[in-house]
Amino acid sequence: MLQDVCVADLNNAVKMNGFACMATFSASDFFFAGLSKPAATNNVLRSTVTPANVMQIPGLNTLGVSMARIDFAPGGLNPPHTHPRATEILFVLYGQLDVGFITTANVLVTMTLYPGQIFTFPKGLVHFQQNNGNVPAAAIASFNSQNPGVQVIATSLFAATPPVPDNVLATAFQIDTYEDRSNQVKACTIEVLEGVL
Amino acid sequence: MLQDVCVADLNNAVKMNGFACMATFSASDFFFAGLSKPAATNNVLRSTVTPANVMQIPGLNTLGVSMARIDFAPGGLNPPHTHPRATEILFVLYGQLDVGFITTANVLVTMTLYPGQIFTFPKGLVHFQQNNGNVPAAAIASFNSQNPGVQVIATSLFAATPPVPDNVLATAFQIDTYEDRSNQVKACTIEVLEGVL
Amino acid sequence: MLQDVCVADLNNAVKMNGFACMATFSASDFFFAGLSKPAATNNVLRSTVTPANVMQIPGLNTLGVSMARIDFAPGGLNPPHTHPRATEILFVLYGQLDVGFITTANVLVTMTLYPGQIFTFPKGLVHFQQNNGNVPAAAIASFNSQNPGVQVIATSLFAATPPVPDNVLATAFQIDTYEDRSNQVKACTIEVLEGVL
Amino acid sequence: MLQDVCVADLNNAVKMNGFACMATFSASDFFFAGLSKPAATNNVLRSTVTPANVMQIPGLNTLGVSMARIDFAPGGLNPPHTHPRATEILFVLYGQLDVGFITTANVLVTMTLYPGQIFTFPKGLVHFQQNNGNVPAAAIASFNSQNPGVQVIATSLFAATPPVPDNVLATAFQIDTYEDRSNQVKACTIEVLEGVL
Amino acid sequence: MLQDVCVADLNNAVKMNGFACMATFSASDFFFAGLSKPAATNNVLRSTVTPANVMQIPGLNTLGVSMARIDFAPGGLNPPHTHPRATEILFVLYGQLDVGFITTANVLVTMTLYPGQIFTFPKGLVHFQQNNGNVPAAAIASFNSQNPGVQVIATSLFAATPPVPDNVLATAFQIDTYEDRSNQVKACTIEVLEGVL
Amino acid sequence: MLQDVCVADLNNAVKMNGFACMATFSASDFFFAGLSKPAATNNVLRSTVTPANVMQIPGLNTLGVSMARIDFAPGGLNPPHTHPRATEILFVLYGQLDVGFITTANVLVTMTLYPGQIFTFPKGLVHFQQNNGNVPAAAIASFNSQNPGVQVIATSLFAATPPVPDNVLATAFQIDTYEDRSNQVKACTIEVLEGVL
Repeated sequence: MLQDVCVADLNNAVKMNGFACMATFSASDFFFAGLSKPAATNNVLRSTVTPANVMQIPGLNTLGVSMARIDFAPGGLNPPHTHPRATEILFVLYGQLDVGFITTANVLVTMTLYPGQIFTFPKGLVHFQQNNGNVPAAAIASFNSQNPGVQVIATSLFAATPPVPDNVLATAFQIDTYEDRSNQVKACTIEVLEGVL
Repeated sequence: MLQDVCVADLNNAVKMNGFACMATFSASDFFFAGLSKPAATNNVLRSTVTPANVMQIPGLNTLGVSMARIDFAPGGLNPPHTHPRATEILFVLYGQLDVGFITTANVLVTMTLYPGQIFTFPKGLVHFQQNNGNVPAAAIASFNSQNPGVQVIATSLFAATPPVPDNVLATAFQIDTYEDRSNQVKACTIEVLEGVL
Repeated sequence: MLQDVCVADLNNAVKMNGFACMATFSASDFFFAGLSKPAATNNVLRSTVTPANVMQIPGLNTLGVSMARIDFAPGGLNPPHTHPRATEILFVLYGQLDVGFITTANVLVTMTLYPGQIFTFPKGLVHFQQNNGNVPAAAIASFNSQNPGVQVIATSLFAATPPVPDNVLATAFQIDTYEDRSNQVKACTIEVLEGVL
Repeated sequence: MLQDVCVADLNNAVKMNGFACMATFSASDFFFAGLSKPAATNNVLRSTVTPANVMQIPGLNTLGVSMARIDFAPGGLNPPHTHPRATEILFVLYGQLDVGFITTANVLVTMTLYPGQIFTFPKGLVHFQQNNGNVPAAAIASFNSQNPGVQVIATSLFAATPPVPDNVLATAFQIDTYEDRSNQVKACTIEVLEGVL
Repeated sequence: MLQDVCVADLNNAVKMNGFACMATFSASDFFFAGLSKPAATNNVLRSTVTPANVMQIPGLNTLGVSMARIDFAPGGLNPPHTHPRATEILFVLYGQLDVGFITTANVLVTMTLYPGQIFTFPKGLVHFQQNNGNVPAAAIASFNSQNPGVQVIATSLFAATPPVPDNVLATAFQIDTYEDRSNQVKACTIEVLEGVL
Repeated sequence: MLQDVCVADLNNAVKMNGFACMATFSASDFFFAGLSKPAATNNVLRSTVTPANVMQIPGLNTLGVSMARIDFAPGGLNPPHTHPRATEILFVLYGQLDVGFITTANVLVTMTLYPGQIFTFPKGLVHFQQNNGNVPAAAIASFNSQNPGVQVIATSLFAATPPVPDNVLATAFQIDTYEDRSNQVKACTIEVLEGVL
């Protein structure tokens, strides 16, 4: 950070680490109203993440912070994912959330959160949030990067373009795609997983 | 950040940049409930900042994030201050807030915020928030440091221990402490300013 | 990095971000012979990662580099994983490797590598390497952290302690654990996945 | 810092964090003669700061250092200010200086310096220097940023454009602008403070 | 690092710290085959360094890693040099290498390495590798910068353009340039240099 | 930097990256008077460097700045050296100095400096300063590290403990150690070294 502000010029032809700066700026470059209302959650995960990073708030360029709002219907899940470039700290607006992160030693660290409570997800570790309550829930997530990135585990593995090779997934998840079809219990195939995502 | 987590051992005899790590950790090290209720605002500024940094959440050590809740009575002010070690991003929980930061070119950048809206205060710059509405307001501030620090301008200058020398303040604010007492309009003295803080 | 060297005192009672330094050092602190031989690969993944980070080479403390050797039997897989704290650059010693990483936009970037060729896996992104050749393969991975960490996706999700809740996994991977048992094609259950890891 | 040198192209149409680099460079890009003479100090503060940062020395771009010369008439003050992006270390060329910084715990740390002595002002904290001697004084300040920035407290609060709202200043400094006009001692108004800066 | 990848646009007219990014990328941007074969070593040092940094692998831009291959004939030397922007970790492919680095306290830290062994050279310190065996040797060096830079001591001092002034070199190495001109031209021995320092 | 100040506890039994912090601090921790007088220069190089880093000023710990004073008799040389961990910016107090740095492309960048002028030496690059004037000279160097380190080229190569092997130096500087032993002992000239590189 080498000047007070450097509002992102999102359309500049010159691409760089972060973004080029606009020549001028105004207060609206540091402002965003898009987190003020719940997002619709009528999707397969019954949850929606609304980002508020440098793409939505160009003034965040070079400043090292961003936010997101996460809305959950009852049963809604923000599925296991990582932020490759940020730690996350989460504040519950309403409802309840079962949250957890997993360390590289495969220890699951979990908590049930209620309104006004906060929890932290260390940089780069797999984590998730789920609304196991009976009413909608919402939370504000904050990150120490203007572009934290999000890699949803299931999507990245089972819905990449081009697809991750079947035998990588089969071996990784130890599912024998071909030999065990007769075994009903072990009949999970990569195709199944891919089919619904 | 050289390991997944390093929960602060706040009482370790060895002091360092940040804190030594506890040998073990649990989910509660990453959790805080202290922002869930409004703080009392019956003070001279009619506002209260409740921190949620590494001192309250030892799991934040090495993770580079923290939060605070700011409650405002009508007319309440979070007075001009800086965070020497962090950018701030603010989410309004309820009420309305007039917010602003001042660049090193002495440009004031302001906005009126309503519930669910967010604004950003770049690292190290003087900024403030004021509730000019008729009802209480509250906001969640998030920082990209586990210990952002806060330097309240008026307090640091007029209530330091030992006091900042009178002639520094008189010259800085261009108030002639002694010569202009007969001039009612210019009668502001350092003693006045000091007396009420 | 605030001095020439700071050899890790791995057993120091004071834990910190990284490690405390030994009072003295010798050349052997910067040396490791443990990557010179192929590791056994008679395991379920038919691959083995041998680390050479600050735990094995205490001299790497504060220096920001480390290595690992990865050995693969034919068909062996280093399954999808992330390094939360490092980019990886890989050099193939012998054999052939199909490698890939997945961006946060779910784009799979793949390549087949032969001896002496190198490839890069950007910081924090899911990636894997597989030996689809007929002979053993081996590679040297290098990282820009002395403790890059590794989070194996399948293990972290399906073999954590305590376990990740079934309904998190079921929803994340869109597998209806209970309702679709009669459907042979969709009979994949979380229990299956957990059972074999 | 990703190459030996990157001399700032101060007029490049593409703005970025720091500056674009010139295609070529020469020794003069790393040189500055503008600190060799005392600056005039016949101003209201009886002190003048002459910067030597990336704007004056384009070769400093990406290098993380800069300097400034501060000249003081007797009684001259470099008023309370912060550098949002740098620590300062000060060397007294001649004369004497009373210097101080204020911690976030409102502790004033002061010293009287004589020629050849040095003192340090930690990153982001309010600090000042004053010549309480009978002869001119001068000092060289050095910073660990090529563009440390300077935010003069009085100017930023009382001479911003647009002005900081009166009620923010009134509340921050606890001056009742309207009710206490009859009280000579408390008659300090925001207008007074603003009027003379 | 503010996005997943930023493949260097090596020819972009806008120069910056690192490189501008290409608008698109493919797997080949992260790949390099140029280290797969030994380089010729029929030069005066009987060793050759083949770089694999951002200039050869544009995908390394912003990623903070690079590699190089070093080939040595018997007796070959990679002469004393520094990397101003990186630590190095070295893996021996074949042959044997006597390696060493020198601390700022002038302590030489040395080791003889055999195939598959690794050693580390801390950031910025003078170091070298020499093949004192009877057969060729080769090693893979890895760096924690995409552009570590290399400053060969002898070349930088004795073959700079324009030349380093004679009296600088004469004084630095304690050789009296003028008095001994009548003496034999090639009589400089290591013992001489060592004797006077 | 995770708190306002962290004064180095230079004698703490626990060693770390930088230093542990004292429990308390005072103004004198940030002060140093040791640069106020010229140092004696009656040594072989006719120059003396007086450091003012974290070892002399414990308050510099974590703050990222330091200084040094360099005194030169006429003809005195601060010989070619690097600072592995800092850029240097130099201010001439009196006298004249011929200064230069050498890039990794072996370009020598030089300038003659007079009192009050400043010059910059990029991080990690070989550089030197020499007083070719008829009167003593002195300069203040400032660094963007509290412990920049200094590696004097001639000393590190020719006066290390244990010694750098003769054949490394002989090959690096292209001096045939054995054939010329019968020649005069001090006949090494700069021209020889330059001629063969």
